[in-house]
Amino acid sequence: MTIDLNSFRFSSPARIRFAETDCNGHMSHVTAVIYMEQARADFLNGLGLFSIEEMTKSGKTFVLAKQTIEYQNQAYYYDDIDTYLRVSRIGRSSLEMEYVLFNRTRNNITGLGGSTIVYFDVQTQKSTSLPSDMPQLIDQFETRFLSKA
Amino acid sequence: MTIDLNSFRFSSPARIRFAETDCNGHMSHVTAVIYMEQARADFLNGLGLFSIEEMTKSGKTFVLAKQTIEYQNQAYYYDDIDTYLRVSRIGRSSLEMEYVLFNRTRNNITGLGGSTIVYFDVQTQKSTSLPSDMPQLIDQFETRFLSKA
Amino acid sequence: MTIDLNSFRFSSPARIRFAETDCNGHMSHVTAVIYMEQARADFLNGLGLFSIEEMTKSGKTFVLAKQTIEYQNQAYYYDDIDTYLRVSRIGRSSLEMEYVLFNRTRNNITGLGGSTIVYFDVQTQKSTSLPSDMPQLIDQFETRFLSKA
Amino acid sequence: MTIDLNSFRFSSPARIRFAETDCNGHMSHVTAVIYMEQARADFLNGLGLFSIEEMTKSGKTFVLAKQTIEYQNQAYYYDDIDTYLRVSRIGRSSLEMEYVLFNRTRNNITGLGGSTIVYFDVQTQKSTSLPSDMPQLIDQFETRFLSKA
Repeated sequence: MTIDLNSFRFSSPARIRFAETDCNGHMSHVTAVIYMEQARADFLNGLGLFSIEEMTKSGKTFVLAKQTIEYQNQAYYYDDIDTYLRVSRIGRSSLEMEYVLFNRTRNNITGLGGSTIVYFDVQTQKSTSLPSDMPQLIDQFETRFLSKA
Repeated sequence: MTIDLNSFRFSSPARIRFAETDCNGHMSHVTAVIYMEQARADFLNGLGLFSIEEMTKSGKTFVLAKQTIEYQNQAYYYDDIDTYLRVSRIGRSSLEMEYVLFNRTRNNITGLGGSTIVYFDVQTQKSTSLPSDMPQLIDQFETRFLSKA
Repeated sequence: MTIDLNSFRFSSPARIRFAETDCNGHMSHVTAVIYMEQARADFLNGLGLFSIEEMTKSGKTFVLAKQTIEYQNQAYYYDDIDTYLRVSRIGRSSLEMEYVLFNRTRNNITGLGGSTIVYFDVQTQKSTSLPSDMPQLIDQFETRFLSKA
Repeated sequence: MTIDLNSFRFSSPARIRFAETDCNGHMSHVTAVIYMEQARADFLNGLGLFSIEEMTKSGKTFVLAKQTIEYQNQAYYYDDIDTYLRVSRIGRSSLEMEYVLFNRTRNNITGLGGSTIVYFDVQTQKSTSLPSDMPQLIDQFETRFLSKA
């Protein structure tokens, strides 16, 4: 499979911490899941939907419903990993996202991921509708992000 | 989907730590991945393939190639989670596993998972053949486990 | 220094997970801090002060004010660590605790710790008085714990 | 106590991840320990003593011998924390360090820390002498760091 990173309009950087490795000598598989969460949080924050203030005001948060990850290359302490993210499907109350963890230090792909998240009403403990202008919100944020990058 | 836990012959218990929750107030999704790793490690240790001593002697370890997880119910600090695990496919150098995270405190399913792991030669940094008697190793361990449970 | 584990009346067990090691090949120092938290949570739960239900009802929680740890011996994946804990001082709204992380697998001390925790009112975001019968609560819990051990 | 951040010549930035919070709603105390490790790793890497390549070549690493931390203010998801670090004592094989975790988002101090680390020979599993020119190494790195900041 060829991954075209240029088809992604957003990424979030991380440098592998010592505590994020394990006794196999490389980055723990758990770390990849944390980097995907970081990218997702940065993205949703950029949309204005995932700050502490916004979540407190709206009474809404996001919860993870499903996640997949495929590990391709080992990564090591202090490698620079950029987690690319794009929204592949917008549902009524859910978002599907795709991820590429790209290792800038070794110029290879650490892993590929996918996730489904659900917009969630804290009071009712049920899923809730996403803002109706999600496509615009996403496009505006990604455009802003690209212009700064 | 009906999950028949009786079709599983192995499980590994954990109690959710405070540090394993997040500011959504529930168990972090990351924790589920760690519990799956713990169950896998307990299982592979039971087979005699994943102790420090064995890995040092054989020069072989297991690495995670692929993982999926589907979250079904929120879990909370101090809930007791049993992670059930079974091998669904034995390849030449890979194992496919299925997981159910069962919340004993709330009597519901926290999540369902799947993973593919690869037996890995540390020296050559390549996959390596599993022992040829894997089915017997697994059956003997699970029988031993069940008789103690 | 001689540590007399018999002077402790409470301990909490953990087995080192793969994800709790680092690329130095041993247990991450971070793990020790998590085990101390687990022992503390088990202890405070035993006192009836730190369950989700109790904290929701009382509007009170505990926060960590200070912690020290001294690492003595390396510990490894799958070692069994018992974290011993005792209360060394009861203040108006704070508790001082001492910890010994004892490695049962290697029969040595992984580390020694100390912490100060503060009883905290979530509404006012200020420290709050501990129950006046803390010495009795502690003695009763430890006696119950010892009788089961 | 007054902390003069200007007396520090090095810091390392982090933004609090969702997974680094806990169900008290704030940054987990464990996270502070990880940020101190990150600052320490960045610092030791800057000295040329803590990269994978250097550690493999020299057969030497650093292990944590002792750590203290005092928590001063709660920090929250997505706050920006700068961990300031300075060496307070250079021993034969050990370094003592002081830390300030400064919350840039809230303009207050999250915590103050201290640690002792030991230079460690992986082969002999014993402490080993630090380079004799540690004061110069440190001064050169900090000067370089300040000129870039």
